[in-house]
Amino acid sequence: MKRLLDEPALRSLARGCAVLGTGGGGDPRIGLLLALQALEEVGPTELVDLDDLPPDALIMPCGMVGAPTVHIEKIQNGGEGAILREHLERLTGRTVAALMPAEIGGSNGLLPLTWAGRMGLPVVDADGMGRAFPLIPQVTMHLAGIDPNPGVMTDERGNVLVFRAISGAWMERLERSAAVEFGGAGVATEYIMTLAQARDAVVHGTFTLAIEIGDALNTAVGDPLAALVAVTRGFPLMVGKVTDVERRTTKGFVRGSVVVEGLGDDAGRLLRLEIQNENLVALEQGKVLAAVPDLITVLDAETADAIPTERVRYGQRVTVIAMPCAPIWRSPFGLEMAGPRAFGYDFDYVPVEELAGAYA
Amino acid sequence: MKRLLDEPALRSLARGCAVLGTGGGGDPRIGLLLALQALEEVGPTELVDLDDLPPDALIMPCGMVGAPTVHIEKIQNGGEGAILREHLERLTGRTVAALMPAEIGGSNGLLPLTWAGRMGLPVVDADGMGRAFPLIPQVTMHLAGIDPNPGVMTDERGNVLVFRAISGAWMERLERSAAVEFGGAGVATEYIMTLAQARDAVVHGTFTLAIEIGDALNTAVGDPLAALVAVTRGFPLMVGKVTDVERRTTKGFVRGSVVVEGLGDDAGRLLRLEIQNENLVALEQGKVLAAVPDLITVLDAETADAIPTERVRYGQRVTVIAMPCAPIWRSPFGLEMAGPRAFGYDFDYVPVEELAGAYA
Repeated sequence: MKRLLDEPALRSLARGCAVLGTGGGGDPRIGLLLALQALEEVGPTELVDLDDLPPDALIMPCGMVGAPTVHIEKIQNGGEGAILREHLERLTGRTVAALMPAEIGGSNGLLPLTWAGRMGLPVVDADGMGRAFPLIPQVTMHLAGIDPNPGVMTDERGNVLVFRAISGAWMERLERSAAVEFGGAGVATEYIMTLAQARDAVVHGTFTLAIEIGDALNTAVGDPLAALVAVTRGFPLMVGKVTDVERRTTKGFVRGSVVVEGLGDDAGRLLRLEIQNENLVALEQGKVLAAVPDLITVLDAETADAIPTERVRYGQRVTVIAMPCAPIWRSPFGLEMAGPRAFGYDFDYVPVEELAGAYA
Repeated sequence: MKRLLDEPALRSLARGCAVLGTGGGGDPRIGLLLALQALEEVGPTELVDLDDLPPDALIMPCGMVGAPTVHIEKIQNGGEGAILREHLERLTGRTVAALMPAEIGGSNGLLPLTWAGRMGLPVVDADGMGRAFPLIPQVTMHLAGIDPNPGVMTDERGNVLVFRAISGAWMERLERSAAVEFGGAGVATEYIMTLAQARDAVVHGTFTLAIEIGDALNTAVGDPLAALVAVTRGFPLMVGKVTDVERRTTKGFVRGSVVVEGLGDDAGRLLRLEIQNENLVALEQGKVLAAVPDLITVLDAETADAIPTERVRYGQRVTVIAMPCAPIWRSPFGLEMAGPRAFGYDFDYVPVEELAGAYA
């Protein structure tokens, strides 16, 4: 399957990436503007299945590292992907065949395709999360044992860093500190791999899923939320009003919390979301309604457009939904890397569909 | 001139590096221990003049980046130099012929020779400062227009970073943030150059000078200070007792100040030293007695051993001396990079010999 990403596809993709971003990955409006500009200047990017490429083809996962709040005002120049590729090819002595988003969520689902389009390369219909996560090694390639090295990072000024880290955790520490020095965000590639390696190391079909989500929202008549729930197999947690937002951009992350007060059928309820770039957990009176690695997304109650964590503000009417994550994240290693305890919470993960049953 | 650095030479060198370190560059006791260990294990390192090497020979400036306080407890494993060289050779496709300390001051004057000895390479009788300075681009290679790229940095764990920075200032920012992430210090190389480039881009003969200083202190009878003043053309600023030390290790630097209360002929005087890794300025009642780029060193009043900024403590009897810097630092670009205003002071540089005349 090959597909050219035209303007309607990009617009649907952006809506879908916003939903899958679970609040993070950077505001997809910025990614969409960059993608539309690339479309106008160099034509559509080609989306390909992994099986459309030869087994030894080199795939470059890439995206933005840093705090999404910074991304809104510190916009890429469009040429960063070419710099990452140039250095990666020089370091490996091999040719990159296709790009892939490290995370499909938010602007990070769109950036790699704008870079690919400008280089005349395809983007593969897959990513390394099936959502967005805050940390570098929180990718399925890490679960599959792919080496994160060499990492390459650059900024809009043209600084370039190459990392050979002794672990994914050190890659995270070193890239994060460089992102902070760059002003809060930079772009990077890690976990370079061949297609043969990628087959069991990525989440397949996530571009297609994101476009389906966007299409469902675009074509829904009257009840976009129902359409979204159907396509994502999600669970609405609450409809309400944002009554408190605490948010700070610190050490290369956005951290904070959001309180939603129930309205209508949910009147009297209080939902608390905790944030590290992404929405991590949804709590009600100390009970867990949903938690990482499952997806928690805050939607505009009227349009069902996802609201990034850095755009949530007092008074917004919202619907909070939770969606099951890609199955690989529910493995023991997946939960070790991205379950509640990986973020410092002292409780075990329970799949959202079980929690939804428990509280229904 | 070639010379094998035997144990007496290393011991003299360590004393001289301490004096030229102006308080910084890392405690030379650590560097001396590492050098004596290397001497025992692989024999003496060869010290060569620049003219002993062919014009296209590649010279690798190197040393420690970070806070000297950290260096005391976070000791290198001895193999870091080989890692820097390996990556530099791979990046440039060329062979390193000799090592050179980026700064002769402190432990940083000794570390490169231990690395060189372990690799069977010589160390050149030169450095990039003629002293120690806190910032990466505060080297004579920068004044000569040598490209700082590629920078390579590593730690005792085996993490490796390669930097291609758009300026010396960005090299400083990016290496500093990595040093902080490494726990406060790492080792690095920048400003790789050929011998032909090095001729007008380094301070010549600084190993020889450091050894002469050490020899003078070792052989002085009765008055080591006088011997030191003679060999460095220095000026004693005050003899006294340390009555206040304010020192904090923050963002990859040691910052603070020291107050010395005069004793004997200097009774009633108060001298204040301000510190950023190195002693930057010596002030008395708001008057400048000496300032960067000239050298200011705190000595044990009895032995004339230099005391690193991180070892200065309340009650020590000390002599503070100032010494003229290498002439290149008194050029307009030299003062722009390392004069008082480069460190945030709102006064112009006056050579120490003029100031000494003015206050004599």
